Amino acid sequence: MLSRPIVEAAVAAALREDLAYGDLTTEAVVGAARRGRARILAREPLTLCGTQVAAHAFWAVDPDLAIELGGAEGDLVTPPSQVMLVAGTIRSILAAERVALNFLQHLSGVATVTAAFCAAVAGTGAAVCDTRKTTPGLRALEKHAVRCGGGRSHRSTLADCALIKDNHIAAAGGVAAAVRRVRARAPHVARVEVEVETVEQLAEALDAGAEVILLDNMPPAQVRAAVQAVAGRAVTEASGSIRLDNARAYAEAGVDVISTSALTGAVRRVDLSLELEAD
Amino acid sequence: MLSRPIVEAAVAAALREDLAYGDLTTEAVVGAARRGRARILAREPLTLCGTQVAAHAFWAVDPDLAIELGGAEGDLVTPPSQVMLVAGTIRSILAAERVALNFLQHLSGVATVTAAFCAAVAGTGAAVCDTRKTTPGLRALEKHAVRCGGGRSHRSTLADCALIKDNHIAAAGGVAAAVRRVRARAPHVARVEVEVETVEQLAEALDAGAEVILLDNMPPAQVRAAVQAVAGRAVTEASGSIRLDNARAYAEAGVDVISTSALTGAVRRVDLSLELEAD
Amino acid sequence: MLSRPIVEAAVAAALREDLAYGDLTTEAVVGAARRGRARILAREPLTLCGTQVAAHAFWAVDPDLAIELGGAEGDLVTPPSQVMLVAGTIRSILAAERVALNFLQHLSGVATVTAAFCAAVAGTGAAVCDTRKTTPGLRALEKHAVRCGGGRSHRSTLADCALIKDNHIAAAGGVAAAVRRVRARAPHVARVEVEVETVEQLAEALDAGAEVILLDNMPPAQVRAAVQAVAGRAVTEASGSIRLDNARAYAEAGVDVISTSALTGAVRRVDLSLELEAD
Amino acid sequence: MLSRPIVEAAVAAALREDLAYGDLTTEAVVGAARRGRARILAREPLTLCGTQVAAHAFWAVDPDLAIELGGAEGDLVTPPSQVMLVAGTIRSILAAERVALNFLQHLSGVATVTAAFCAAVAGTGAAVCDTRKTTPGLRALEKHAVRCGGGRSHRSTLADCALIKDNHIAAAGGVAAAVRRVRARAPHVARVEVEVETVEQLAEALDAGAEVILLDNMPPAQVRAAVQAVAGRAVTEASGSIRLDNARAYAEAGVDVISTSALTGAVRRVDLSLELEAD
Amino acid sequence: MLSRPIVEAAVAAALREDLAYGDLTTEAVVGAARRGRARILAREPLTLCGTQVAAHAFWAVDPDLAIELGGAEGDLVTPPSQVMLVAGTIRSILAAERVALNFLQHLSGVATVTAAFCAAVAGTGAAVCDTRKTTPGLRALEKHAVRCGGGRSHRSTLADCALIKDNHIAAAGGVAAAVRRVRARAPHVARVEVEVETVEQLAEALDAGAEVILLDNMPPAQVRAAVQAVAGRAVTEASGSIRLDNARAYAEAGVDVISTSALTGAVRRVDLSLELEAD
Amino acid sequence: MLSRPIVEAAVAAALREDLAYGDLTTEAVVGAARRGRARILAREPLTLCGTQVAAHAFWAVDPDLAIELGGAEGDLVTPPSQVMLVAGTIRSILAAERVALNFLQHLSGVATVTAAFCAAVAGTGAAVCDTRKTTPGLRALEKHAVRCGGGRSHRSTLADCALIKDNHIAAAGGVAAAVRRVRARAPHVARVEVEVETVEQLAEALDAGAEVILLDNMPPAQVRAAVQAVAGRAVTEASGSIRLDNARAYAEAGVDVISTSALTGAVRRVDLSLELEAD
Repeated sequence: MLSRPIVEAAVAAALREDLAYGDLTTEAVVGAARRGRARILAREPLTLCGTQVAAHAFWAVDPDLAIELGGAEGDLVTPPSQVMLVAGTIRSILAAERVALNFLQHLSGVATVTAAFCAAVAGTGAAVCDTRKTTPGLRALEKHAVRCGGGRSHRSTLADCALIKDNHIAAAGGVAAAVRRVRARAPHVARVEVEVETVEQLAEALDAGAEVILLDNMPPAQVRAAVQAVAGRAVTEASGSIRLDNARAYAEAGVDVISTSALTGAVRRVDLSLELEAD
Repeated sequence: MLSRPIVEAAVAAALREDLAYGDLTTEAVVGAARRGRARILAREPLTLCGTQVAAHAFWAVDPDLAIELGGAEGDLVTPPSQVMLVAGTIRSILAAERVALNFLQHLSGVATVTAAFCAAVAGTGAAVCDTRKTTPGLRALEKHAVRCGGGRSHRSTLADCALIKDNHIAAAGGVAAAVRRVRARAPHVARVEVEVETVEQLAEALDAGAEVILLDNMPPAQVRAAVQAVAGRAVTEASGSIRLDNARAYAEAGVDVISTSALTGAVRRVDLSLELEAD
Repeated sequence: MLSRPIVEAAVAAALREDLAYGDLTTEAVVGAARRGRARILAREPLTLCGTQVAAHAFWAVDPDLAIELGGAEGDLVTPPSQVMLVAGTIRSILAAERVALNFLQHLSGVATVTAAFCAAVAGTGAAVCDTRKTTPGLRALEKHAVRCGGGRSHRSTLADCALIKDNHIAAAGGVAAAVRRVRARAPHVARVEVEVETVEQLAEALDAGAEVILLDNMPPAQVRAAVQAVAGRAVTEASGSIRLDNARAYAEAGVDVISTSALTGAVRRVDLSLELEAD
Repeated sequence: MLSRPIVEAAVAAALREDLAYGDLTTEAVVGAARRGRARILAREPLTLCGTQVAAHAFWAVDPDLAIELGGAEGDLVTPPSQVMLVAGTIRSILAAERVALNFLQHLSGVATVTAAFCAAVAGTGAAVCDTRKTTPGLRALEKHAVRCGGGRSHRSTLADCALIKDNHIAAAGGVAAAVRRVRARAPHVARVEVEVETVEQLAEALDAGAEVILLDNMPPAQVRAAVQAVAGRAVTEASGSIRLDNARAYAEAGVDVISTSALTGAVRRVDLSLELEAD
Repeated sequence: MLSRPIVEAAVAAALREDLAYGDLTTEAVVGAARRGRARILAREPLTLCGTQVAAHAFWAVDPDLAIELGGAEGDLVTPPSQVMLVAGTIRSILAAERVALNFLQHLSGVATVTAAFCAAVAGTGAAVCDTRKTTPGLRALEKHAVRCGGGRSHRSTLADCALIKDNHIAAAGGVAAAVRRVRARAPHVARVEVEVETVEQLAEALDAGAEVILLDNMPPAQVRAAVQAVAGRAVTEASGSIRLDNARAYAEAGVDVISTSALTGAVRRVDLSLELEAD
Repeated sequence: MLSRPIVEAAVAAALREDLAYGDLTTEAVVGAARRGRARILAREPLTLCGTQVAAHAFWAVDPDLAIELGGAEGDLVTPPSQVMLVAGTIRSILAAERVALNFLQHLSGVATVTAAFCAAVAGTGAAVCDTRKTTPGLRALEKHAVRCGGGRSHRSTLADCALIKDNHIAAAGGVAAAVRRVRARAPHVARVEVEVETVEQLAEALDAGAEVILLDNMPPAQVRAAVQAVAGRAVTEASGSIRLDNARAYAEAGVDVISTSALTGAVRRVDLSLELEAD
């Protein structure tokens, strides 16, 4: 769910970057009255995301463009499916093209890689979730894309839940003390997660009442042992060095959640083309 | 060259995303008076970029943090070099850590991949340059990172130069007409570039006075032939499907410029770690 | 913990409201060179909050003002304590006075009423926490003030935790179904809270795995019964119609948390005066 | 009269605070296709304000929501009147509910308390007006609410009129000098108001040509004497320590205007409920 | 008095327009280490304004630039006086030059033309003041410049005072009714000004209690007659078709104030040059 | 081509300046239900520009205003042509009037003076173009207006093309070195322009490969000689001290382009009136 202020601010920023002074080529070459239809086509299988943002990009350039979506957010699309149809003045279509595609390719990229991770772990019961390693300025959009791809959100901000890491443990003087401090001060609606690296830390975290255990940078076999040690007393999450090619091994190790920064930020753009046809 | 309004706006947006309501874990666990030093270390060879932005992220959380840079923008850094040293209140360091690293990893990622492309074509005389396929909202920062990596900018906005593509040619009724219209209306300080796909179009573009020829999606052999046909009458640029593993082949085909969307947006983050030591 | 972008944006908005076109009285009457010292004094006992914001308001008008704080955020201050000392050009002091005081009086008001609630329940073990009924635009500042007063945050945004209310239960077709859907889709780091109005709902919520039970609009006796029924299986929170004069009764009923909209938004300003003395 | 940029900026800020990352409960529990109707009902007598802002909050989340107002800005509404009807997707209604209600309850609170003050002085000829002690960021909205409640605006900014207070008098070396300086430099369209505390100052202010006399922190009897001393030569305004229970005494003392910070900022929210019914 | 949020927002907007993607010429040509000193020199007599804004423009590009002002806001400067000295990196100086000069030339232009009008009416007792015909986005800066030039502000916004024009009179059904409505609803601190075109309207306005009479588009002789008819019962303001060459005639007709849109917006830039000298 | 984010941001800024607290006169005097029609009429021959911005200003105040344009952007309009018809609530029309007219008068002023320059050089083949001496904050709008008047854009930002001036030449140690550095680092799509003051510099610039020669502050005879010396090897541009009365002399000297800061910023507003008629 993306509210308009989020969408409009993102679109306005992108248009200011690209179109502040107009599109000199298009304005010089294409007559103002020429009309046409642009089809945005998938050139590879992809999970669609960013249609609302892309549509706003076209409308921000020209509110009279008519837009027809070829799929809903989160749909699996196969080539040569039509993702979006934009009809109206050719000048407006060409001027907005790059900004609209930049959003669509990036967000569908996030959704598509998320869907690939979800497919990789299908049937294991493990959920795939994102991290806070998102592109600066695009977190809300990228987390939306992760959900469109079938993934789930880890915390959105530093105020959503407590995630106690090594530096916190060191500062508190131990896992138990850190959990106790969080419980005394943090929102009672926030879960407490503790990052552990050893079996001893794991036991200490469970004893301290951790509700989520983050198993960081462990190989699958160690993860499996840890999950068995947890024995259902907490949610287990594996993180660190998880890639598409080893995700299933982690999932089969029994964790509830796999979190990976591979879903957001540095994600391959999906391949889309815009085919224009004059009326 | 990044002016402060650009840097501050990017940092403010990222902090609003992550820290609007504080860092509940750190505030609960780490005493307000505890001080320490954080070292941001390179864990792989990289071309450094984003130090100014990252420093602003720390200062936006706490202007009393002392920051010492381990390298300048564009420096090649090898592990385990120290990229940045941040000293002050541990609370502030941990609260700003993720935002600072997100910028540093993303922008150094852009610079590093750019440097890799530059290395791949070293000695050929070809320049490596970016495109308008940048991350929405981060174009100025990413183009700065490309330059830090040794690359060059293609146009920054749609108003910088004329780039006549197939849709423009179709609208104008031919290459010559399109160039003529641009020359009649566009800034006299803008070069005119024409995208060509065939030998006929190339000849037509040169005759029309194109100053830059964009050879789109051609294999290297075809690029070589085109460059020879141009015979120095225009700058030649190859684009489309250029990857690190084939960049040199394109460069050796004699083009002046290789442009690729691989430099920006969907770029692998460099591997950095933040090591904290309490005073 | 308030980062500078939050503070600066709030101050800039308030100054644009009040001082966009200058202070015609002060500029006409007070010579530009006159200097003095202003003391902001407490005229009632209060819990201090907003000193950082108020200081930024003065500095936004004149970076050369020297500011000395008479207390830290969260300090209990008794009259006639000096809360802040501002020295410099009288014009600047008078021009910024109202904006600085508006923040200081409002945020200290939030902190002071929170401290009063905390005092009312002292010794019972119940925590006092806020709600999302905050002043539009000031949520981060008001939640900071609640913490300065000794209170705790409930969720900051709609994405922090799951809070299942009557409309959600109706839409899901029951408490169990609602909890199940949340568990299947919401972040694994989010706790699930369920609002209950009857004993039956309470049992159903516990069975469904609710981690927090919101006892809404119940009299203290009913709250006590509910807490006993919960028997430690979940965190209990009482809300609705809780005022300073009945807060202790709720706390003594055994709940873990009392949440009330009385802490934020519609809060009495604390009584502060600014006494100016020319040099 | 509220222009859209003011309304949209306030709504965008509030939605960014609450809904930046979506509504995890509602999105998890309520199916995307479910539709319904929400009735916002008055649960106490109130003067309505904020309908335009609340409507924009719903539309910012979902432009397809249909909204029907149950009353106009400034209407007196008695329970259980329907203040607003919102029809459409239940997800959108629930996601926007809190932001819409926060505006509606706060602004109707301002209008309602203003109306109570106006009722208290009815028939006396005294006007009720606000001050610059408004909630930071909401001045335009709160001043609009005061007018909806039958009150009037004092100055909106420090540039609207001259209000000479004790510190100005001290800086100028007397009332007459202060008025003279203002007349020499301030806009000729600005009235000059002088704050007086004694009979001597009153006489001096009138002699100096003050057009409005601010009688600050005087008991009603002293106000009456001052008004008689003014004898129609200036507008009289009483301020300081005016509450609902003593407002009439001040009004009956003959002042033209009563100004009080009780109208804005720290104002009790009106009691509204949102009742949702699925289609 | 310009607060920093106003100045910084104006500078940031101007830099985003000019320098978002850097200064390609300077960055390519001038070595990063080269340092120098730039002198901004007056090339004609002028009244200085905008030094604070220009200094911020330089600092926004490079906080390490050292700036020395050659005069204060409002100073009369004669060629070849040095208005500002900027020392530091040549790259930074050249990159910020145009933005800094644009502000300085525009605002000094406003101040200079204002000073010329003031000189034209010197000794007559008439004040010179601006209007709301300002450059969109620059009103606060332009009104500051008018004051630097010796002029005074008319109303800053539509909420500062009541200015009853022909359309208002028509809507109210006459001057008296219009004034009565304003007195019943507008702030008691706002003066009421009435625009009159005939002797009858003038009499009616005075009878209705107008405090300022706007004599619109009358020749000086008619203004003189009107002033005599007013006979001190109101402030008189002449407006419409007032130019530098007829301003004195209007002033000598006895009006208190001459207001003219010639002071703001469409104002000749003053002639400044920036002379750079390498260290 | 102006995208909505540009237009809406400009309008919002202007309305915040003028209407943040409403229009006290109009709201007091004009009944909320009164409707009427306003005609904006040309009172002098002009080239129309700003209709889209002005329409947005009216709609930002009241989306229910009906607007009918009397001409398109760039049309030549002669008095008493109707430029715009606005129908709806009189309150809304009067409240938005000044902001709408400020844009319309300023931008049509830019377009009109540009058209005058174009007319002055008609038939010579010289183009008229703007500079970067634009009003801070309005560059995109002013450059749009220049194009509406028949002019062309010089560079929009410092990143559009290379313009090598005296300080760059000095820093590089000569024209050839400066051009070489630019060619080695600047975008290959950017033309290189060199400012020359002597015949020697001209020869050096041509030899170095300058594509545009800026002939700065030369009298027409010297320009003619320079153009002949260039002999078609570069585009020639004359700049400096070009006014409407000598523009043709420069054009007839054979330059390709005349650039002048007279088109933007300090431009006479066109004369428009708004005539209101109640329904």
